[in-house]
Amino acid sequence: MKILRTIHAEDLEDIAIGGAVLGTGGGGDPYVGKLMAQGAIRKYGPVKLVDVQALADDALVVPVCMMGAPTVMTEKLPQGDELMNAFRQLEKVLGRKIDAVLCGEAGGINSTTPFVVAAASGLPLVDGDGMGRAYPELQMETFGLHGVSATPMVLCDDKGNSLVLETVNNAWTERLARAATVEMGGSALLAFYPMSGEGAKKSVVRGTLSLCLSLGQTLRETRLAHTDPVAAIAGMLGASVIFNGRVRDVDRRTVGGFARGHARFDGLEDWKGHTLKLDFQNEFLMAERDGEIVCTTPDLITLLEAESGNPVTADSLRYGLRLVALAFPCNPQWQTPEGIALVGPRYFGYDTDYTPYPFGG
Amino acid sequence: MKILRTIHAEDLEDIAIGGAVLGTGGGGDPYVGKLMAQGAIRKYGPVKLVDVQALADDALVVPVCMMGAPTVMTEKLPQGDELMNAFRQLEKVLGRKIDAVLCGEAGGINSTTPFVVAAASGLPLVDGDGMGRAYPELQMETFGLHGVSATPMVLCDDKGNSLVLETVNNAWTERLARAATVEMGGSALLAFYPMSGEGAKKSVVRGTLSLCLSLGQTLRETRLAHTDPVAAIAGMLGASVIFNGRVRDVDRRTVGGFARGHARFDGLEDWKGHTLKLDFQNEFLMAERDGEIVCTTPDLITLLEAESGNPVTADSLRYGLRLVALAFPCNPQWQTPEGIALVGPRYFGYDTDYTPYPFGG
Repeated sequence: MKILRTIHAEDLEDIAIGGAVLGTGGGGDPYVGKLMAQGAIRKYGPVKLVDVQALADDALVVPVCMMGAPTVMTEKLPQGDELMNAFRQLEKVLGRKIDAVLCGEAGGINSTTPFVVAAASGLPLVDGDGMGRAYPELQMETFGLHGVSATPMVLCDDKGNSLVLETVNNAWTERLARAATVEMGGSALLAFYPMSGEGAKKSVVRGTLSLCLSLGQTLRETRLAHTDPVAAIAGMLGASVIFNGRVRDVDRRTVGGFARGHARFDGLEDWKGHTLKLDFQNEFLMAERDGEIVCTTPDLITLLEAESGNPVTADSLRYGLRLVALAFPCNPQWQTPEGIALVGPRYFGYDTDYTPYPFGG
Repeated sequence: MKILRTIHAEDLEDIAIGGAVLGTGGGGDPYVGKLMAQGAIRKYGPVKLVDVQALADDALVVPVCMMGAPTVMTEKLPQGDELMNAFRQLEKVLGRKIDAVLCGEAGGINSTTPFVVAAASGLPLVDGDGMGRAYPELQMETFGLHGVSATPMVLCDDKGNSLVLETVNNAWTERLARAATVEMGGSALLAFYPMSGEGAKKSVVRGTLSLCLSLGQTLRETRLAHTDPVAAIAGMLGASVIFNGRVRDVDRRTVGGFARGHARFDGLEDWKGHTLKLDFQNEFLMAERDGEIVCTTPDLITLLEAESGNPVTADSLRYGLRLVALAFPCNPQWQTPEGIALVGPRYFGYDTDYTPYPFGG
């Protein structure tokens, strides 16, 4: 199989930063996943990144990810053994060898967790994912839009407990896996959505791991070159700056396992005299400028520090931070009626239809 | 294999009543299980009850039960297909044919649920169970006292979802299965504690299904013969009457999934001028007469209507009911230090050690 590029431990620094950009304020802190992936690569060797089109149609491809609160894992998961447990158990349930590893979610912590399994198994890792961003629930995968079932799925914890789920639909997978994850202490490791190479070719959001790597590299290089990191990132993503300003206030509360709330910004420079309100439910889901909606889920809204270009999560928003808000179009798979039903603004409780960003663009 | 007796649909009436006696006030209403078992026997034929000693040492024996709120199942479970799903899925996980069915809990609804699987599979049903009574949690099985693991376990719901659990201990099985059951709508069907014939011989509480049948038959016959049903039941169980009186008040609340509370009784006849307080957490767990403890878990406390001898659950206690309280010793397996740790008064939060009933007896 043709290898796109070989990923070494030091590349994970860039991938984690890029994952935070695609995390759109949520998706979990990539730090833990990065350490796990670096540990695995140092132990087992580098990871072979491959294009999804290089897979045989009858290949067996399995995505892996972490579910729940990544902070819980910091103490107990240096090697990522539990991810490998989940992966190998699913292989046993399926009764055949898995041919390639896939990323479930390229935004946030799960941009790095698949590297653990790819390194430890020696299998190629597909350059892509099932979201092109971060989302909080297991059924929110482009895989499901093409009829791929989330089950059989294996869920493992750090104590040695495991579950094999078989569910009637992917929404039930989410419900049962969520309940188990909470009971397991808030964090679990999954292998799920087993699919054929043919299914992967239809459903994967292509190239997102390379994109993460490039985003991280670009931020690092512009910093060294003292050029504008925000403009460089916006250029790579095809994003526009929808605001530039300071955080005025943040209203954040935990509701039903989500970090919900909003942040308000006062404009600076070109945006002086204007205001922005960003709504989040883990991820940034809606941006209103001067009271008008300018971007909603599934399109991406991300915040960067104005000076450094570093991505900022909803968790770390605080008074006075000077930030730039970028908006950019989602993968077209999310723009289908089925995609909008799964992750559009109404699913998250907003009384508005989805209009692709940029409005009227 | 030598068959102890053949169980027909009409026998389930008696078994369900006997199961309510051993339910010690909890264990769920046997009505639903009875209907399921009668339906299965009418469809597939009678059930062969066998003694545990008749099993080959290397036989594979699997208990089945219902978990959660049995009332939830009334609408959806006339044939008990989900129990068979759980049973057959566990067979697949174990990779070999199951040789006999076992009862997890002879008190309450689960005195009848194993008949569904025995009828539908044509396999013999072992005359015995893992409690000799009812208890609310999955790790409260004599099987575990002999090192039998609750997992691999299969848990199914009525919608078609299923889980295979592998846990590090039986307390974790309970936690994860409980969370899934709640998410599944409050009720689920299990196949668990797979064991060898040798393991079953060591751990089964022997003869409890025959005992349920005899208790029900006796109540029916004494009613026809106008003899004293309470005396007949007490005689069969080796129980003593610890009180005879009317319900004065009932304090009942739902805490952490338990129906917790107590009932107070004013004495009649021999017990005139005395009082009884019965504490329950689903099951009756402690009896205090005139302020002195007379019986605690794991020994059995059960309430019968004074006139009919019919067993009364904690749920149906109400002001003015005239009842007789019986106490009788538990299976000796519960009286070991390991048994007391699992189901003794301190496990349920009572600040008292276990003293076998009758005290000083």
